[in-house]
Amino acid sequence: MELTRYQVTVLPLGRTIEVLAGSRFVDIARTLGLAISLPCGGEGVCGKCRVWVRSGMAEPTAADRRHLTESELEQGQRLACQLAVRSDVVIEIPETLLLRASHQILTKTGEVRLEKDTPLVTKRTVNLTETPSATDLVAIVRHALPQVGLPLCVLQDLSQQLLEIPSTRLAVLAEGCLLALESPEEASPTLGVAVDLGTTTLAASLLDMTTGAELAVCGRLNPQTEFGDDVISRIQFASETPWGTQRLQHAVVSAINEMIEELIGQAGVDRQMIYQVVCAGNTTMQHLFCGLSPQHLGRFPFRATTLEAQRFFASEVGLNVHPRGRVYVFPAIGGFVGGDTVAGIVTTGLDQGRSPALLVDLGTNGEIVLWDGQVLRAAATAAGPAFEGARIKCGMRATEGAIERVWWDETAQQLRYHVIGGTDPVGLCGSAILDVLALLRQWGIVTAEGRLQGGAALRRTLPEDLAHRLIDDQGTPAFIIVQNSRGDARGDIVLTQRDIRQLQLAIGAIRAGTEMLLRSAEIAPEDLQIVYLAGGFGNYIRRRNAQLVGLLPRHIPTERIQFCGNASLFGAKMALLSREVCRRAEDVSRKVEHIELASHPDFHWKFAEAMIFPDCQPL
Amino acid sequence: MELTRYQVTVLPLGRTIEVLAGSRFVDIARTLGLAISLPCGGEGVCGKCRVWVRSGMAEPTAADRRHLTESELEQGQRLACQLAVRSDVVIEIPETLLLRASHQILTKTGEVRLEKDTPLVTKRTVNLTETPSATDLVAIVRHALPQVGLPLCVLQDLSQQLLEIPSTRLAVLAEGCLLALESPEEASPTLGVAVDLGTTTLAASLLDMTTGAELAVCGRLNPQTEFGDDVISRIQFASETPWGTQRLQHAVVSAINEMIEELIGQAGVDRQMIYQVVCAGNTTMQHLFCGLSPQHLGRFPFRATTLEAQRFFASEVGLNVHPRGRVYVFPAIGGFVGGDTVAGIVTTGLDQGRSPALLVDLGTNGEIVLWDGQVLRAAATAAGPAFEGARIKCGMRATEGAIERVWWDETAQQLRYHVIGGTDPVGLCGSAILDVLALLRQWGIVTAEGRLQGGAALRRTLPEDLAHRLIDDQGTPAFIIVQNSRGDARGDIVLTQRDIRQLQLAIGAIRAGTEMLLRSAEIAPEDLQIVYLAGGFGNYIRRRNAQLVGLLPRHIPTERIQFCGNASLFGAKMALLSREVCRRAEDVSRKVEHIELASHPDFHWKFAEAMIFPDCQPL
Repeated sequence: MELTRYQVTVLPLGRTIEVLAGSRFVDIARTLGLAISLPCGGEGVCGKCRVWVRSGMAEPTAADRRHLTESELEQGQRLACQLAVRSDVVIEIPETLLLRASHQILTKTGEVRLEKDTPLVTKRTVNLTETPSATDLVAIVRHALPQVGLPLCVLQDLSQQLLEIPSTRLAVLAEGCLLALESPEEASPTLGVAVDLGTTTLAASLLDMTTGAELAVCGRLNPQTEFGDDVISRIQFASETPWGTQRLQHAVVSAINEMIEELIGQAGVDRQMIYQVVCAGNTTMQHLFCGLSPQHLGRFPFRATTLEAQRFFASEVGLNVHPRGRVYVFPAIGGFVGGDTVAGIVTTGLDQGRSPALLVDLGTNGEIVLWDGQVLRAAATAAGPAFEGARIKCGMRATEGAIERVWWDETAQQLRYHVIGGTDPVGLCGSAILDVLALLRQWGIVTAEGRLQGGAALRRTLPEDLAHRLIDDQGTPAFIIVQNSRGDARGDIVLTQRDIRQLQLAIGAIRAGTEMLLRSAEIAPEDLQIVYLAGGFGNYIRRRNAQLVGLLPRHIPTERIQFCGNASLFGAKMALLSREVCRRAEDVSRKVEHIELASHPDFHWKFAEAMIFPDCQPL
Repeated sequence: MELTRYQVTVLPLGRTIEVLAGSRFVDIARTLGLAISLPCGGEGVCGKCRVWVRSGMAEPTAADRRHLTESELEQGQRLACQLAVRSDVVIEIPETLLLRASHQILTKTGEVRLEKDTPLVTKRTVNLTETPSATDLVAIVRHALPQVGLPLCVLQDLSQQLLEIPSTRLAVLAEGCLLALESPEEASPTLGVAVDLGTTTLAASLLDMTTGAELAVCGRLNPQTEFGDDVISRIQFASETPWGTQRLQHAVVSAINEMIEELIGQAGVDRQMIYQVVCAGNTTMQHLFCGLSPQHLGRFPFRATTLEAQRFFASEVGLNVHPRGRVYVFPAIGGFVGGDTVAGIVTTGLDQGRSPALLVDLGTNGEIVLWDGQVLRAAATAAGPAFEGARIKCGMRATEGAIERVWWDETAQQLRYHVIGGTDPVGLCGSAILDVLALLRQWGIVTAEGRLQGGAALRRTLPEDLAHRLIDDQGTPAFIIVQNSRGDARGDIVLTQRDIRQLQLAIGAIRAGTEMLLRSAEIAPEDLQIVYLAGGFGNYIRRRNAQLVGLLPRHIPTERIQFCGNASLFGAKMALLSREVCRRAEDVSRKVEHIELASHPDFHWKFAEAMIFPDCQPL
């Protein structure tokens, strides 16, 4: 991992943050609460997301050269979506390119109001002096910090310190509670860790909470996977196994502790500097992290223990940070619409505009949120982990060896694919699976009902390269993407009829959910001005293909579909840097109308209907 | 121990409490917040504290027969100070006998206002029902109990329970925080433990917090004594030994856990029923119990870590009660004026009257509080543990074998004494030490400067029994109280010249402190309308003798001196039963003016002066 760091100053915000070399500029902007309009979804196709590099180095990319004149390049114009940090830079974003100030860092006039934007933990210099009635240390502290919370464990620490009065100290404060008094001579950065509690993968980021700089990132498989690969099987394990909840909690906390170890190693910092951890994930993952049994989520009426944001000491769950470090867990919306979705709403600023907008979060489950300009409505769908490659014969996560893109090369009359890491292909990740499905629908190989056809009549209409790929896979039809070099059938990379049924279920669930939400808000799909796509998988799909197979609304221009990355991790990072973001998350979680799809009389009918793929113009 | 319990109903309060057989009525009244005027200090001498036994049995005592006519006895009149409970009884206290309603249970008109008097923990029946947006259990609980605090550990418990909705539950509530949801079918009493954290002895009482009934009591030596017998040596140990604070905390918490074990055994109850522990003690003892290092109390400017009341979970310090049980630790006034003194002020209602009143708490240290009708002033004195028998050659605590009273029998011309438990005498406890000192002063054997005289001229003026008792004890003069039956000198019970020097220091410290407080309030000693004497030792002394040797102000009628028992334990019990008492304790602790005697320029002069015993009329 490349550990060089650079200073990035973003105008007109005027804020400088330190980032790892190679960080994408759009991610940096998002961390600062700025969403940049990316009409083509950040693929370098439309050439519209132009920003100014005011100082520093930014080698033009091929896309830059395609869309910008030599003179524009010389002036420092670059495409935001292509821009990665390779030196200290100052970058100016034209006001017109800013979608909105997603957590109100900017006022309407563009004036910077950073003072409202207090990180979850701050350090403040305090002068501790004798007061008229200062017989105790607490009175002296309260004189400098009126109304501050002083829990017993913090008093125990203070009592052990030898504190001469008068003295100047750095008070470490978390939302009105004193965590420690540090010596100003030994001042160290105030660090925080943001964690995305994914069902399948965990991601963590180490931030300097004062500067906003990202010092290190890492990720790993959620070790709870060994107890079940989806939310339902985890709930079963927790409910039916003695100490099941505690075992699952221990698994995820241990993994986060390993990640913290990795983060502090990468950044070369001390764990004592970490005073805050923020976690966001689906409701079940958040329950398990907090040691709350999710048993009630597993039986009618599928109730969470709590949807409220949680604040507690890191020691209460066993996280290895500063002994008085705090934890913030995102508020949730419903039993199956969790803190990750709240993070998505807050980071996209979904509810800040006037026109209808949709957020689709494609994780192990699929959550959908609709903003009609006045009301937020959210629903969970049982999409399952198909888009993460699970339950798909040759499916896999988007790691090295995964085919992540498949396309038809018209000129060469051949199917082509791209493998992550450039190695030999091992399997298909979600984005490639969607590509293949869309291709099969376009060539009429898969019917609207989802049947994979392989008849001679059809084969005759297909290019030779495609016709050859229709095979019989242990008695059922299949489409072969990569033939095993050894020539035997076992190692081929294929998409089978069964896989297509799984995809029909997953896509149908999302589509039916979207349609139910649209109907309850009386909004036509074409009225949606923006569709945000969140979740690790969501970031890499071809939007047109997602529309073709019915995963996303078909009747809107593709440009309206925007990727917003790992919204859960972004939200956690933003919360670390801003109490206002926490307040907004809590506000949003309370005001969202939670639609229980399964209990809606029309849902099953809609679901069945949505299993039929949309009509498709043949290629 | 006699474990039979009886119901005592007290009129006009109308409240019934259950007490152990043999409980003293004045103690019961005090638990209910009623202070009865005892002009002779409760010795059965004045015959003024008459109450009415309206039903039940109360065998007249010798004192009753001395002061009451046969017809008065038949009507049910008894002396309150002599009354002990031997059956279920209803007792009426005449309004004129009530000193004041010490925590405002009674209004001025005598109307009962129990509703203000909420115990620290209450159980309330709640109906948990579906609410329009009840997707989570917490929302359902909040619908029934708005604004309730729900800490993570309680949510963890709730998540493990299988809770059908709708359902009726008993919500266990502690000052706005939910501790548990109990099944109403298995309703159990709500119990609390009051603890007096004495430097030398610990005392604990198990109360039913709903009825106020005392179910069991017990006491034991504070095991911290092995690390030092006074506050200063404990502070040294805590400051200078690795993990010193933690070791002292562990010692006292273990002892309290043993006492809890004994209490629940005596009462035949389950520890899960105990939801609250209240502790009061001096500032150092409270620090050590909370795991707060007292190191700053041991060096200039002798600062406590905190004087605020503390509230935390019993599990945070390792107390074995209900896992979600709470602890309340009394607020303190200064580094050496602790929660025990606050308890004394609150239980006596010292600041409720209009006329000057003094509270002297004689424990291992001596604390003095003066109320001048408008301002409370408090001071700590370094009286040391002499009154508890420590540092006195034949001194001992007031347990079996201790001589607790010594007097001159004019008729028989002989010194007499009384031994606790009626056994052979082993040593002298504090009250007897004071008796002997007063006697020696009255006979002119000890001079005003504290010299124990043994010259022939003096011997000739003394009765023979006294003259014989003046001996030489290993080179210094001594007064022998009991001669060893074996005839050798080693086992004699004596008071030595060195003992008298110790007493001079202890009495001088209290007297100088009292005089400093009186002077700063510009009050003459004779203006004191009441002097309360608290502390285990204080309960048993002869008030006249305490005045003779200068421990208590001489120029007030002895009747104005009132015993108030173990105020620390009483205060803890009252706090268990009343949040109003906690509020008043916190209020009082903040408004007391703390006088630092040692830093006062006049103090050393006053102290030296106070070492001279007052003039004494010879017998």
